[in-house]
Amino acid sequence: MGTTPDRPFAGEALGAFVAASRWAEIGPALRHEAGRSLLNFFGCALGAAGDPAVETAARVMAPFSGPERATVIGRAERLDAMGASFVNTIAANLLDYDDTHLETVIHPTAPVASPLLALAEIRGLTGAEVLHAFILGAEVECRIGAAVSPGHYDRGWHITSTAGVFGAAAGCARLLGLDARQCWHALGIAASQSAGLVENLPSAAKNVGMGNAARNGLLAALMAQAGYTAAPAAIEGPLGWARAMGDAPDLGRITAGLGQEWEFARNTYKPYPAGIVFHAAIDACLELRQRVAPDDIASVLVEGDQLLLDRGDRLVASARDCRVSIHHSAAVALLRGSAGVADFSEGALHDPGIAALRGRVKAGLDAGLPRGAARVTLHDRRGRAFSALVMDARGSAARPLTDEELEAKFRENASIGGRESDAGPLIQRIWRIGDAADPAALLRSLGAA
Amino acid sequence: MGTTPDRPFAGEALGAFVAASRWAEIGPALRHEAGRSLLNFFGCALGAAGDPAVETAARVMAPFSGPERATVIGRAERLDAMGASFVNTIAANLLDYDDTHLETVIHPTAPVASPLLALAEIRGLTGAEVLHAFILGAEVECRIGAAVSPGHYDRGWHITSTAGVFGAAAGCARLLGLDARQCWHALGIAASQSAGLVENLPSAAKNVGMGNAARNGLLAALMAQAGYTAAPAAIEGPLGWARAMGDAPDLGRITAGLGQEWEFARNTYKPYPAGIVFHAAIDACLELRQRVAPDDIASVLVEGDQLLLDRGDRLVASARDCRVSIHHSAAVALLRGSAGVADFSEGALHDPGIAALRGRVKAGLDAGLPRGAARVTLHDRRGRAFSALVMDARGSAARPLTDEELEAKFRENASIGGRESDAGPLIQRIWRIGDAADPAALLRSLGAA
Repeated sequence: MGTTPDRPFAGEALGAFVAASRWAEIGPALRHEAGRSLLNFFGCALGAAGDPAVETAARVMAPFSGPERATVIGRAERLDAMGASFVNTIAANLLDYDDTHLETVIHPTAPVASPLLALAEIRGLTGAEVLHAFILGAEVECRIGAAVSPGHYDRGWHITSTAGVFGAAAGCARLLGLDARQCWHALGIAASQSAGLVENLPSAAKNVGMGNAARNGLLAALMAQAGYTAAPAAIEGPLGWARAMGDAPDLGRITAGLGQEWEFARNTYKPYPAGIVFHAAIDACLELRQRVAPDDIASVLVEGDQLLLDRGDRLVASARDCRVSIHHSAAVALLRGSAGVADFSEGALHDPGIAALRGRVKAGLDAGLPRGAARVTLHDRRGRAFSALVMDARGSAARPLTDEELEAKFRENASIGGRESDAGPLIQRIWRIGDAADPAALLRSLGAA
Repeated sequence: MGTTPDRPFAGEALGAFVAASRWAEIGPALRHEAGRSLLNFFGCALGAAGDPAVETAARVMAPFSGPERATVIGRAERLDAMGASFVNTIAANLLDYDDTHLETVIHPTAPVASPLLALAEIRGLTGAEVLHAFILGAEVECRIGAAVSPGHYDRGWHITSTAGVFGAAAGCARLLGLDARQCWHALGIAASQSAGLVENLPSAAKNVGMGNAARNGLLAALMAQAGYTAAPAAIEGPLGWARAMGDAPDLGRITAGLGQEWEFARNTYKPYPAGIVFHAAIDACLELRQRVAPDDIASVLVEGDQLLLDRGDRLVASARDCRVSIHHSAAVALLRGSAGVADFSEGALHDPGIAALRGRVKAGLDAGLPRGAARVTLHDRRGRAFSALVMDARGSAARPLTDEELEAKFRENASIGGRESDAGPLIQRIWRIGDAADPAALLRSLGAA
């Protein structure tokens, strides 16, 4: 993990990349993917804006908010950039409905977009500046995450939080106009703030880790702007981030093809508000529902790789549990033929029919299946077996959601957030955010009326 | 690391301890140690209040500060409890002059006392409530740190930051009056915010990690108070804090003798503003200076265990480096016969005589010496050898600073902070803080006039 004079420090290379990138060099496909990510982000945040977890986060942050206020998406109160970053990140990620960089299982947008939008609103920056900083921040986030995957997550690190703080720092550093050296130091300062545990994923403590990735990434950039520095090798040094938090880091991943190949271009979007590892099983269940009536189901076996079992084989006692339960995911898809926000809510949790079917779902290991695939086998009451195998889930890289599907998802979320009436115009304005001279107006309109 | 029904979760046991503790059960020795810790804390913070690193932190935090303001020690501006916690923790720790729990090398007070004092000032709490919460928070901090030592630090974790967030959360949870369950969840939320890297210790990024321990610990308690929860085994679970951040945790240390034996009672105070591992070498050099005139010194060999070399054998390019350099520590003690704040400043860094002598200091391994001990051997220009061996440094558990020495240290720091004129009355008020109905008045008087 040493650094030779011929090879820059990891943070140095990323800092130079972030500071030197030119908007004109960002191609239309990447810009469009950023638009898709933001459309998905705003929808998810709108849909969750009324959730008690978001309400609580906003209430706790309110007394600690300075006078320059930014939009809290879907809500009436406004908070300073730290507070708005914290709450909007929590909202956009809350329902496990946001985006996924599949290789690392990072959900890239929430922690990066939130502080950038808050900064842009307060400082009057343009949409192109925001979109550019977002792309750079998300790229840094995914590359740093890729360097420590999969050992990092396996060790207990919630990678969206731990890598998210780097993405937020990089994006904010760019948006604040920091030079290459300051961007480098912002990333080093972010390294000392990287935190978040997998153990806490089924609890609200997860939200705090997520919100902090945004809030502390913004702080890292502000401190670097003000002159704070970090160790040159904060990321890769012998007592630095990658060694402390990764078991076998591949540091070359941080810089290989930087500026040429884009990890962020591999971003994907969830069709279902549940852990990404359950999506193939949900697809299989939705398919089987065409063939077997719910009342006829005697037993359900869901098979997948070890990750599916590790993540999903659990007791279900809350809506949060539902979103990471293979039993609930399968039951609701088989019973209702749907897997939307309402299907992973408190109501669905307590639905007697779903509860009964959850109890008939078993999870099993098929080590021969690749990660992300699932096989579901039903037996009906007459003993007949029905099976469906899904190798590539809807929304995966092989079957990406179309722009129209993303718009429909936005409408669903906007409707939950009470914004069905202007969902159409909002969608059009979000698609055009890169051309907006004043994205603050869009943001203000995304706050509650 | 599993938990049986017979054995509570680690956070559950600590939460019950924090919530149930009664002030009447805290003996006079422990109360007095807390007073010593706070006297040392306030002095260190006063001494560093004018440092550019503190000035910068306060300037960055100012726009993100809500209307309810607390004291920034030694400074005129006031910040909300989050901002004041952040800045005061940075100041109290900045000069490596604060306190040390020697087994873990945690510097316990700065991250715990700062948020408690800010909360007390804003909410009008009593001195006894603050002192009690401080003792409990520092105890939790040291116990959690002990459970993962020494593998945690060796892996790259800056334990004062990573354990400090638990101490701050526990103390704030107590001061806010949370019940046992809420205290438990506050600790679990803290686990998802634990961060800070040894690699960054020679840089200002260290300060951000320190300040965040306080700021995020306060946030953990506030979120738990507002209803946020964490995973039951956030600390010790298979994907929890101790496994992610420790190599071979000894979880029994968290609860063994809880309420009977006090890790915090082992707190010590630094006589010199430099890394604790250099103190025995400084003592030896101060002794040798009585025997050899500085101009006669031809060479200096400082020997100690591996930690001394790991921490101290480095290039010196900043005042920050001086404080963690065995070469500078030895040179300044030999040349000036002192090792105070001015001896680890920019001025001392650039002093030609010290620079020349730094170049004649060599560090060597003597694996036979216990941690914390040092031998210094000089050769004078006539080839004569002089040697001094210090097994227990001044300020160590075997040779603790007296109350009078702590008062003298406070006066030194107060003088640097421009408060020599009222240092005496301040000392008396700090000793009596546990009896103060309104510690806010003391805190306000510790802000700049």
